[in-house]
Amino acid sequence: MQRRQKISSIDDKRHSLAHLLAVAVLRKFPGAKLGIGPTIENGFYYDFDFSKVKVLNPKSEIRNPKQIQNPKLQNSKQEFKLIPEILPEIEKRMRELIKQNLKFKKEIISFAEAKKLFKNQPYKLELIKELHKGKSKIKNQKSKLQIKIQKLSIYKSGDFVDLCKGPHIKSASEINIDSFKLTKIAGAYWRGDEKNPMLTRIYGIAFETKKELDDYLKLLEEAEKRDHRRLGKTLDLFVFSDLVGPGLPLFTSKGVIIIDELKKYVETVCRNYGFEKVSAPCLSRINIFEISGHIKKFGEELFHVSSQCGHKLVMKPVQCPHHTQIYASKPRSYRDLPIRYMESDKMYRAEKPGEVGGLSRVYAITVEDGHIFCRLDQVKDEIKNIVNIIKDFYSGLDMWGKHRVSLSVRDKKQPEKYIGDSKDWNKCEKLLKEISDEMGLGAKRREGEAAIYGPKLDFMFKDAMGKEIQIPTVQLDFATPKKFNLVYINEKGKEANPVMIHRAILGSYERFLLLLLEHFSGALPLWLSPVQTIIIPVSDKFSDYGNKILQELKNNNIRAEINDNNETLGKRIRNAELQKIPYILVVGDKEIQNQTVNVRHRGQEGEIKIDELIEKIKKEIEDKQI
Amino acid sequence: MQRRQKISSIDDKRHSLAHLLAVAVLRKFPGAKLGIGPTIENGFYYDFDFSKVKVLNPKSEIRNPKQIQNPKLQNSKQEFKLIPEILPEIEKRMRELIKQNLKFKKEIISFAEAKKLFKNQPYKLELIKELHKGKSKIKNQKSKLQIKIQKLSIYKSGDFVDLCKGPHIKSASEINIDSFKLTKIAGAYWRGDEKNPMLTRIYGIAFETKKELDDYLKLLEEAEKRDHRRLGKTLDLFVFSDLVGPGLPLFTSKGVIIIDELKKYVETVCRNYGFEKVSAPCLSRINIFEISGHIKKFGEELFHVSSQCGHKLVMKPVQCPHHTQIYASKPRSYRDLPIRYMESDKMYRAEKPGEVGGLSRVYAITVEDGHIFCRLDQVKDEIKNIVNIIKDFYSGLDMWGKHRVSLSVRDKKQPEKYIGDSKDWNKCEKLLKEISDEMGLGAKRREGEAAIYGPKLDFMFKDAMGKEIQIPTVQLDFATPKKFNLVYINEKGKEANPVMIHRAILGSYERFLLLLLEHFSGALPLWLSPVQTIIIPVSDKFSDYGNKILQELKNNNIRAEINDNNETLGKRIRNAELQKIPYILVVGDKEIQNQTVNVRHRGQEGEIKIDELIEKIKKEIEDKQI
Repeated sequence: MQRRQKISSIDDKRHSLAHLLAVAVLRKFPGAKLGIGPTIENGFYYDFDFSKVKVLNPKSEIRNPKQIQNPKLQNSKQEFKLIPEILPEIEKRMRELIKQNLKFKKEIISFAEAKKLFKNQPYKLELIKELHKGKSKIKNQKSKLQIKIQKLSIYKSGDFVDLCKGPHIKSASEINIDSFKLTKIAGAYWRGDEKNPMLTRIYGIAFETKKELDDYLKLLEEAEKRDHRRLGKTLDLFVFSDLVGPGLPLFTSKGVIIIDELKKYVETVCRNYGFEKVSAPCLSRINIFEISGHIKKFGEELFHVSSQCGHKLVMKPVQCPHHTQIYASKPRSYRDLPIRYMESDKMYRAEKPGEVGGLSRVYAITVEDGHIFCRLDQVKDEIKNIVNIIKDFYSGLDMWGKHRVSLSVRDKKQPEKYIGDSKDWNKCEKLLKEISDEMGLGAKRREGEAAIYGPKLDFMFKDAMGKEIQIPTVQLDFATPKKFNLVYINEKGKEANPVMIHRAILGSYERFLLLLLEHFSGALPLWLSPVQTIIIPVSDKFSDYGNKILQELKNNNIRAEINDNNETLGKRIRNAELQKIPYILVVGDKEIQNQTVNVRHRGQEGEIKIDELIEKIKKEIEDKQI
Repeated sequence: MQRRQKISSIDDKRHSLAHLLAVAVLRKFPGAKLGIGPTIENGFYYDFDFSKVKVLNPKSEIRNPKQIQNPKLQNSKQEFKLIPEILPEIEKRMRELIKQNLKFKKEIISFAEAKKLFKNQPYKLELIKELHKGKSKIKNQKSKLQIKIQKLSIYKSGDFVDLCKGPHIKSASEINIDSFKLTKIAGAYWRGDEKNPMLTRIYGIAFETKKELDDYLKLLEEAEKRDHRRLGKTLDLFVFSDLVGPGLPLFTSKGVIIIDELKKYVETVCRNYGFEKVSAPCLSRINIFEISGHIKKFGEELFHVSSQCGHKLVMKPVQCPHHTQIYASKPRSYRDLPIRYMESDKMYRAEKPGEVGGLSRVYAITVEDGHIFCRLDQVKDEIKNIVNIIKDFYSGLDMWGKHRVSLSVRDKKQPEKYIGDSKDWNKCEKLLKEISDEMGLGAKRREGEAAIYGPKLDFMFKDAMGKEIQIPTVQLDFATPKKFNLVYINEKGKEANPVMIHRAILGSYERFLLLLLEHFSGALPLWLSPVQTIIIPVSDKFSDYGNKILQELKNNNIRAEINDNNETLGKRIRNAELQKIPYILVVGDKEIQNQTVNVRHRGQEGEIKIDELIEKIKKEIEDKQI
């Protein structure tokens, strides 16, 4: 609280900007009804109901329903629709309020007073009534008892009053006039419930300074360009179909090429370290996840499968229990260990229907999963192997070094959160620390971040928005082998439980593709490019020569296309550039004469002999050059 | 009926043998209660309830519960259990009845008489009562009216009476005394319902002559050796887990190697003919299968998916509708066609829980599926391409020539069974006939076997039991593109529907693996063998040399293992032979001296230089030699 009394936080400013937004909107559109106006990450919003507003100038304020982004809005005819073009005018009004140095004054009033004050604001009234009835209670976190509110706080700014807990800045002049921007309009159900009326939400972003705002806008613009959904469409990598449904991408042949190349790469790297590919079904009896404990973890996210014949199955949310069953399928001796399984298969999560989108959240993720079963004395070498695999794989993509590592350990104050022997835990935490030191990982210790069954090493990378994405992980697990009674016969001829190591290299192909596309802004390394070369004959009469080269490239296992349609040369070159095709080969008179092609390769241009080009491309693919 | 009056059919003999079996069992075990005793393919069975039987000699007749094959029987303790060792004695008693020339005499009796006659046979009584109440009615097929039975027929053989519609032979002497055999004992619920008591079923097989019986027994023995379930276990290719459930195989690394090699092979062959790999999710909204018509076709076999969040999805039973959505994802021109998609993905069928088993019937089949979208003028070339792919693929496995082809066309008398334009049908049937003639396929015309949407070419191969399995298929389809509004812009700038061609090369990997294992009795061609070579050092002191060779083989991409455990040399060689490893390399003193290995390769043995061996193996793999 101290912080807030001394210098206003950026959050207080954002919250106050939400009020200024409401003031500006009410002045422009008298009769608008107010929802709520909280702060969010980097900004704020306010919800309005414009259904009672008289339209002064329909042309400028009613938007063509076809242009409306949110399809839900298209159903309501003749309604007042705010157009994005109105935002600068509202921003201007907000700036005027800042210049006028509008004050924010807190007052405590009774429920009776509040009801009277907000009698024309039905949404506010609804909130007041609920607070009064005690339906909306404030939880006292410490005692976990619920306290009934006796009084309400409001904030006044001129003739504007809002039901609000605060805090706010004292005066609008604290806000830098150029440090905020209204960004978009969207539909939002009152209180997030689709049975309630759809309100109009105006979003804004705000920072301390204009520079911070500009930087953020630049980042947004850059992220928009790198957005994997946009790139996925431009590069024709995956599509969605209403008939199949959201959260269920269909990969085109180009998308599959990237996924297959990644699969081949990661499998080759892992095979060199002794991993063997296995394959488990995606369905199973629910029982196996009860034993493993995943039922508890996934609960609502589990997909249940049934049929008219009475089947009752679930779709696997993870792979680990299935792999234990392959281990358990025959007797194992200490000499057989370590056993290393890998599998790239789909796992299913019943994400909330409203939350799926693009490749970042889908119903089925294709996980490049792996599990090692080994003896305790083999654990260190095995983990080092995995770290080496991660290093090899990410170095190959020029991403190694642009990461950080966490050593996620127990919170010793909360031993009830973990299972297994404390001695084993100490040993393994020490071991991971040693590995981090010996391999120069610089893993940062994070207490309380361990899995319930053991400590882990997590590797973090960044997406286009600079947000950290955790992908590779190495996890030690003593519990699962015991739960499934996995054993091996040790050197003394006695049964012992193996240690299980869970490992992910590239995580899920969907998310990794997202990361790759955003990392490279779509211009993937040659070996990952679905189309590696495209031949563009200057005109029809060079098609034969173009096709001859096409065949030569294909014979050398180079993925090649030709574009000899009747669009202009310029347009065809631009199209190829938009599709980020690494080698654009233009052929005309001169090239036929010289038996060459004119190459455009990421900004550079020049004539080259075909054989020479093929050798160059083959080497670049072979070396997986970035 | 004429046939039956003149010469007794083998079915009548089998049915009569079932009665003789009942007579023999009742004489040996007085008090046994009778279920039913029908004929089945190649034989007959009879169901008995032994729960009221007094055990005369427990040692010989009660089987150790642990040895009982059917696990259901293990639950009932202290029950009378028939042991297989009793079967020869019962067979002997049956032969005596034949020698005694037991007669089969039909009589017609009233329900009252029947109830009195079978008062000590509760199962027969149950049937009689139901027939009397009219619950079990006989359907008159022509009128589809149900006729209530007024009288019952019984068959008498000496003091044995059975409720039976017949027909039977007149006298037991018609049966060749050496032409039948009792084969096994199994548990079977009364009337197939698990709420009813478990009865004991005795199975027999019977033929006209001893030679036929011997031939069939030989075939059974051979099939048993080739049985893919047995081979799958011996070769460690796939396993089942009670926790995962039946119908859901888990493939071990060896199984995955075979599947991956097949996948690589079929994809390479198809890629040469212009197929591109795509990938569709296994889930979708149900709507898409309503449009395609698959809901009707699969109905009960559809797996429904739900979650606590309210998801309502289905698992795809086929791939075709998903592929239409990739086609539909962007505008297509006549110049873009043909478009050829392929995908090896799982499809899901809710097979009846009691019917799944081994790899022949599973809940998820991995189908190597493909669809072509093309113009009408491209159909012929496309189909020829597919036939060439099938020819290439099966020739590579030495299976081409051991097949036959069907040309499945409409039944013109039932036009209501098909959709689409009759002119198109005529054109396409003619076209498939032309292709069969031009390519020398010798396709046999089968009327009424076409798909609802078009005619097809089906290719049939045989399993270990000589049963025909239909695998590759080429199907013409005019209907689906119209249902999904698939279009392309033709040369005149107008929209036209493409033709869809469905094609399967190896069908499902599960069934194909079954066919391959049974075809080769497990001794797969080198390129498909999970372990291609195994090194067996004569003793410990040759392990180093063995490991050196192991590394050399691996460096040459030859799948190799070493077995230097402390079992005897003989045992290790036998184990390798059991696992059908193509090259068994024994190394000892002499081999170190000569820098050679002693090769055992499918019956042949000899010393060979390592380099020479590696070259030989590499060539054999490269050429996919059989």
